[in-house]
Amino acid sequence: MSAPPTHPLDQLITRPTLLLDPDRARRNIERMAARARRSGVRFRPHFKTHQSARIAEWFRDAGVEHCTVSSVEMAAYFAAHGWTDITIAFPVNLREIPRIESLPGGARLGLLVEDPATVHNLGARLTRPVDIWIKIDTGYGRTGIAWHDRDRLESVAHAVAGHERLTLQGVIAHAGHTYAADDPGAVAAIHRESVARLQHVRRDLMEAGVERVIVSIGDTPGCSIVDDLSDVDEIRPGNFAFYDLMQRRVGACGNEEIAVALASPVVAKHPARSELVIYGGAVHLSKDALRLPDGRACFGQIALLESRGWSAPIDGAYVTGVSQEHGIVAAPPPLFERIAVGDLLLVLPVHSCLTADAMQGYLTLDGERIPMMPKAAA
Amino acid sequence: MSAPPTHPLDQLITRPTLLLDPDRARRNIERMAARARRSGVRFRPHFKTHQSARIAEWFRDAGVEHCTVSSVEMAAYFAAHGWTDITIAFPVNLREIPRIESLPGGARLGLLVEDPATVHNLGARLTRPVDIWIKIDTGYGRTGIAWHDRDRLESVAHAVAGHERLTLQGVIAHAGHTYAADDPGAVAAIHRESVARLQHVRRDLMEAGVERVIVSIGDTPGCSIVDDLSDVDEIRPGNFAFYDLMQRRVGACGNEEIAVALASPVVAKHPARSELVIYGGAVHLSKDALRLPDGRACFGQIALLESRGWSAPIDGAYVTGVSQEHGIVAAPPPLFERIAVGDLLLVLPVHSCLTADAMQGYLTLDGERIPMMPKAAA
Repeated sequence: MSAPPTHPLDQLITRPTLLLDPDRARRNIERMAARARRSGVRFRPHFKTHQSARIAEWFRDAGVEHCTVSSVEMAAYFAAHGWTDITIAFPVNLREIPRIESLPGGARLGLLVEDPATVHNLGARLTRPVDIWIKIDTGYGRTGIAWHDRDRLESVAHAVAGHERLTLQGVIAHAGHTYAADDPGAVAAIHRESVARLQHVRRDLMEAGVERVIVSIGDTPGCSIVDDLSDVDEIRPGNFAFYDLMQRRVGACGNEEIAVALASPVVAKHPARSELVIYGGAVHLSKDALRLPDGRACFGQIALLESRGWSAPIDGAYVTGVSQEHGIVAAPPPLFERIAVGDLLLVLPVHSCLTADAMQGYLTLDGERIPMMPKAAA
Repeated sequence: MSAPPTHPLDQLITRPTLLLDPDRARRNIERMAARARRSGVRFRPHFKTHQSARIAEWFRDAGVEHCTVSSVEMAAYFAAHGWTDITIAFPVNLREIPRIESLPGGARLGLLVEDPATVHNLGARLTRPVDIWIKIDTGYGRTGIAWHDRDRLESVAHAVAGHERLTLQGVIAHAGHTYAADDPGAVAAIHRESVARLQHVRRDLMEAGVERVIVSIGDTPGCSIVDDLSDVDEIRPGNFAFYDLMQRRVGACGNEEIAVALASPVVAKHPARSELVIYGGAVHLSKDALRLPDGRACFGQIALLESRGWSAPIDGAYVTGVSQEHGIVAAPPPLFERIAVGDLLLVLPVHSCLTADAMQGYLTLDGERIPMMPKAAA
């Protein structure tokens, strides 16, 4: 067998590098944008996955004008890059009110609340107008007002109504329990249940006198698997731009949609256990893991760089252990034989958001280096 | 009960911030340096834990002149800050030979090898002299030559001898399986076994004609628990500067030695499940977890900021879940009642090395901001 033609990047990469396939990412973005258009819902993608002004332009190319972020600093970063309608989808942090105040006054800003005291605190201190979203827990159990807790819901809505600069927009949920579903049918069932609960909350609010309640939902599995999203008003998925093994597991994507891979030099071979050691560990991939059917942990699946991108993931070739800088790759014999110390392996990540955050930048298959928002100093 | 006196930092911290107690860290460093002196061994601490030139000065204050790092870029960073004897304790990455060549010529540099082909590649390409350490697997099973594989050992030593610029220094091991031990006795047993296996390897090498073989070992549990380290020549622990819950679990430290804590604003309260939600998640703490006796995952234990530092960790108060930016804190009722949205919780991390790497900088209890080595761009 002759060696396959290599990709020109093979000669450039010297250490762990997050490769990005721009065609795949753009297709993922366009597909979700098209689904939102067909469903007649507003598309407010979550930018915490990529954290990059350059990649955000690909969303703009797909007609996107609204975005979601997970921190005030991320809002400041995207506002500085021309985004003028931003929701910070994280319970508002009262310690950052001065920083919220300093965000560009021309940008429309949405904040999440879930208790009346926080609303009053915001209302008393903010001098700029903001949109308010009530965070609802539709079953995930992380944060938000339980969907059936009408008393707390009404007390928050009432609190918002008492402050001139706060405008209640609607209710917002993240059905993150779709990530733990075992198949697309289970994801769709969770999605339907979440939406039904949000509609219930909307009725409660309207009965309490709120005139207009926008319903916003935002998990990648639900928004990828459910084709018709017209029973909500807004979707906020983020991970779908890159996808990953966790999304593949629940049926939200196929291998051809995974748009990032960690290029990792091989630094050792262990024939007795058919393992390769790569320079690519917890500080590159993160420690998010899936469980393989045989019980081993999986921190990523291996592919190889080929002339036009990367190969299909290799059956049985997984990162089964990570320490700070090392990754341990269980390599089936044909892969083990083919790979030498100094070669590159590509790791499809388990959770692309955390891998991107760890790597702080991308190298596209076209050779373009794309920076991310810099991490805040201590 | 009147409110306890607060720490002045309480008013300054607005978002997740890695607090560092400099007195504890300096005591940890001095204690390990003293143990190395008493044992008559060279102390070459691993700087991947802190990754900070400023903190490295605290080691210099304790008489330390040698250091260990985990990447070529980290070697370059510490060389630029005056460190002149550096071991890169990671299997040498052939793709970085040009970067290794560009390290300051005046610095003494140690590289790890474990196969003859890599040695020949290095020998043929390097134009600067380097020290060579043979990486030995004493039972951890991550990487290195199996301690009983005399053939491979001799072939590597023979390869080194054939290259003028490569000087064999000795054998090096990381008994990382001490991290999984259940008590100090088990740690000490693993340490003794590792050392005995390295001594065995040393004898093999000397019988094969190598005149001088330095034995280097380097895990924090072993070096913390075993008082007399005189049966090796060099120790390379790193984590001990900060310690963490993982080290406490194996008995390598007490609560009073843990020197870092993630200050995290509380953003929501959930009375029905006695949970607090903090701004402090996977991108701050990392996803390294311990298992609590009741089966829950633990990503950190809670303490509170007090006038002179932080409190003892609070029984039963753990971070039991993390997503990208959220942490879920199981709060016993007395803590739950005391804490309001907007307050700070401090999280003692499970694995301080990964938390520090994620946070990219420190704020000391004295109010000093300490930067870390910047992450390499994509």
